[in-house]
Amino acid sequence: MPGDFPALYRLGIVGAGQIARMTHQAAVKLGITPRLLAEHLDDSAAQAAPEAMFGHPDTLAAFADLCEVLTFEHERLDLGLLQLIEDSGAVVRPGTKTIRAAFDKLHQRRVLLNRGFPVPAFAEVRGPDDLFDFASTHGFPVVLKSVRAGLPGQRGVWIVESANEALRVLAEHGDRDLMAESFQAIVKELVVLVARRPGGFARSYPIAEMTYQDGEVREIRVPAAVGHPVAVQARELALRLADEFDAVGVLAVELFLTTDGLIVNELAARPHNAGHVTIENSPTSQFENHVRAVLDLPLGPTWSNAPAAVTINVIGGLENIDPANNLVDALAVEGAQVHLYGKIPRPGRKLGHVTALGDDIEQARELARRAEAALHGRRP
Amino acid sequence: MPGDFPALYRLGIVGAGQIARMTHQAAVKLGITPRLLAEHLDDSAAQAAPEAMFGHPDTLAAFADLCEVLTFEHERLDLGLLQLIEDSGAVVRPGTKTIRAAFDKLHQRRVLLNRGFPVPAFAEVRGPDDLFDFASTHGFPVVLKSVRAGLPGQRGVWIVESANEALRVLAEHGDRDLMAESFQAIVKELVVLVARRPGGFARSYPIAEMTYQDGEVREIRVPAAVGHPVAVQARELALRLADEFDAVGVLAVELFLTTDGLIVNELAARPHNAGHVTIENSPTSQFENHVRAVLDLPLGPTWSNAPAAVTINVIGGLENIDPANNLVDALAVEGAQVHLYGKIPRPGRKLGHVTALGDDIEQARELARRAEAALHGRRP
Repeated sequence: MPGDFPALYRLGIVGAGQIARMTHQAAVKLGITPRLLAEHLDDSAAQAAPEAMFGHPDTLAAFADLCEVLTFEHERLDLGLLQLIEDSGAVVRPGTKTIRAAFDKLHQRRVLLNRGFPVPAFAEVRGPDDLFDFASTHGFPVVLKSVRAGLPGQRGVWIVESANEALRVLAEHGDRDLMAESFQAIVKELVVLVARRPGGFARSYPIAEMTYQDGEVREIRVPAAVGHPVAVQARELALRLADEFDAVGVLAVELFLTTDGLIVNELAARPHNAGHVTIENSPTSQFENHVRAVLDLPLGPTWSNAPAAVTINVIGGLENIDPANNLVDALAVEGAQVHLYGKIPRPGRKLGHVTALGDDIEQARELARRAEAALHGRRP
Repeated sequence: MPGDFPALYRLGIVGAGQIARMTHQAAVKLGITPRLLAEHLDDSAAQAAPEAMFGHPDTLAAFADLCEVLTFEHERLDLGLLQLIEDSGAVVRPGTKTIRAAFDKLHQRRVLLNRGFPVPAFAEVRGPDDLFDFASTHGFPVVLKSVRAGLPGQRGVWIVESANEALRVLAEHGDRDLMAESFQAIVKELVVLVARRPGGFARSYPIAEMTYQDGEVREIRVPAAVGHPVAVQARELALRLADEFDAVGVLAVELFLTTDGLIVNELAARPHNAGHVTIENSPTSQFENHVRAVLDLPLGPTWSNAPAAVTINVIGGLENIDPANNLVDALAVEGAQVHLYGKIPRPGRKLGHVTALGDDIEQARELARRAEAALHGRRP
């Protein structure tokens, strides 16, 4: 039956968004056709891949039985259930230990602090008192965060400037577990992608720099505009983190470069939006190296193919324009690489991305911006 | 339902081998999920793509009704049926006129001769007399050819050195329509890929050079080792041929460089084995440009990314080793790009290919050969 060839790599991917879609493509190149655990027929990956099993993530155990190796495109999982599946002998990559570090930010902060990794001051927030205690020590603004990774597009971070604002957020989101962090003067937001095999052999990709717009990643540039010492420190930090949490597959380490140096912001135990650029800019994409790593196959080279690369996310606007309707204009931008995910447009939804390589960042950015604007039916 | 997003590009691909598999991937990148007309559940593309409809190519008409644009991965079609479908208003790209030129070599030769393209002397062979007449004029050896494109791995060319040998081949293959061509002193075998949109805008890829082994393409190198005048002439020739046959999509023009210059060998109205190298070596692969062209979207750049690129086909040997079993060794060859098609190994069957880019051909070939040898469980 389809997907059973070759039988020796029966890979299952939990989730069927664009990350799963691109991971599936990387596996197919290698002759491997992963199964997917999708939730909806129109999930991005389910449209492009056969062998999608449709079910709530709670059907994980049944899905795991079909697979030799289980991997994930998101961390929104029942960690208790996942631990049971792993303890029952299933090959779960990354394992529960890694996924918990990405999913439960309070747990992650405690481990990192304990191990001497650079993290901001933080505290659990069970109610207003915890928050005011924290603010009295560290002052406003305070960064209020949801402890657990949320759904795509779901807001999980609030920068509160005052006690009143804090009370408003708590009143609105008190149902979620929250934590507080001291506000940082952020110079840059960096991402280091690490691909790591069981046993610990790992490689990192050149550092990416992210810029945000309306809370969504807007633009990724490689190389990040940081000095050599910061670059070396960031890659070493990311590799140490991957070891710390026994990461297998791609671990995306989001870092803040602050006036006081690098601190760890977030972890993602999967291919990351900032790594889409590796499809064209590296000999081995983050997706292929994720597949290689979770199957314990040798990793491919991670260097940059071009002096500069820029990826711009194509994010749904209020007009709900389908970028597929403007493909003819976007593809007319010579040299831009257009990726669409087949998703139904919604405001704030990631519908695709555009990558351009260049001799310098400005040249690459100009191409990527023109193609992205075209997809939205705008002139850049 | 899956595959219906976006509705505006409902593309159907007839055939489900590796060409369809890689074409499907190129379409998915653009947010398009083509339907496939497959014949068997374990067809290479059917394993990796949903929306496969299973049926004999004779079910073409029913399949065409599901698609807005119909394209093909092979020319083994009922041209009468295809003409009917095209005449009924279906968008068939390439059209019957192009496919006939690739499918019916006698027809193709007559058109080319008529239009002044360089072709060898040829004649229809309805029986021994036709062959002997031809040999008496042009002498032995004579190239005996099946008029119609055969199945993959099916022999369609015989170089006969004598009347007795000719009679043997005719006795064995007299059921097939045959033609004779004068034997050429071949210096090199070249392939020029042209991507052409409806209306005639076209681009050609840098010329590829093919080497054969046991009648199967063994190795493809880009650039071909030919002088500038030959390269220019070859690309012009290919573009004129694409115009002549109103090609839409990729037209692969196989040329012989003989001691008397270039002559046309074969045409393929689809992405071609010699174009797999474009996946890594060009900003736009032959598969993406085929999809763009048949959907009348702007073509992408076709230049080479590297000074040299070599692709080696992974062809099943007598031992029936599944290269997927040796993936771990092949991926250990740093920088080699391994593509497997998920096919059940059979002697002579194309199971995958390996591409390597390099600063010169020797460097690229060395990498590709090491990875290919590893897939066969050999040391290079």
